[in-house]
Amino acid sequence: MKNLITDILLVEDNPTDAELTIRALKKSNIINHIHLITDGAEALDYFFCKGRYNERNANVNPKFVILDLKLPKIDGLEILRRIKSDNRTKLIPVVVLTSSKEDKDVIESYKLGVNSYIVKPVDFEKFVKSVVELGMYWLLLNQPPE
Amino acid sequence: MKNLITDILLVEDNPTDAELTIRALKKSNIINHIHLITDGAEALDYFFCKGRYNERNANVNPKFVILDLKLPKIDGLEILRRIKSDNRTKLIPVVVLTSSKEDKDVIESYKLGVNSYIVKPVDFEKFVKSVVELGMYWLLLNQPPE
Repeated sequence: MKNLITDILLVEDNPTDAELTIRALKKSNIINHIHLITDGAEALDYFFCKGRYNERNANVNPKFVILDLKLPKIDGLEILRRIKSDNRTKLIPVVVLTSSKEDKDVIESYKLGVNSYIVKPVDFEKFVKSVVELGMYWLLLNQPPE
Repeated sequence: MKNLITDILLVEDNPTDAELTIRALKKSNIINHIHLITDGAEALDYFFCKGRYNERNANVNPKFVILDLKLPKIDGLEILRRIKSDNRTKLIPVVVLTSSKEDKDVIESYKLGVNSYIVKPVDFEKFVKSVVELGMYWLLLNQPPE
């Protein structure tokens, strides 16, 4: 895991949602590389260049992160708290993509500094459409901090 | 200016850009009300319910804000600093829409907590397309903190 240029970091433990998300994102043909991480501890290793990511170049960050909230080991809100309170990682745009519509998750995410919060549509086609729009927005329209 | 439900607050001093933006946003037919403010001092009055906005209900906020950076009286970065450092307003999603591609503006906006940063395309049609996509994303896809 040295210096692959990763456009999108996807942190998602549900294999079906991960596969659907990656397939939808690749539809747009504008993505070089999506990196999938399936638990919260590994996500923190990625951000802070530890463990198997100890050779990752901390100055080359993904254009944005798609973060699920319910994750094994360390949950999404805790990851958000850590990356948005650390100067090394706080500027990376993070989009929460979750099945939770609960006010406390929405409010807490914004308090911690999430850039955008999207509720996963239950309907399969709507899910794919939302992910395509999300990908286009953050890759083509948004200017990341480089 | 009592309790109109405002979907989008647009802070933009350039009359052509403001008109184009409002026209593009209205294309999507999903917007009840866009409120336009053309200088920075009035924008702060809006957010903090002062001056002509002293009867505005501070608990009813726009779903998101489109903020230009170069504004008369108080500039966009200063507005961003004030609203993102105040608990009454920090959760409102703010999208900077500016002609500035300068790194210092991009980085400073993210440091201050902007949710998204979009560079105004120079080309007229691209400008309209970007604003339509921006509006759809923040009104239909993003879940605001309510």
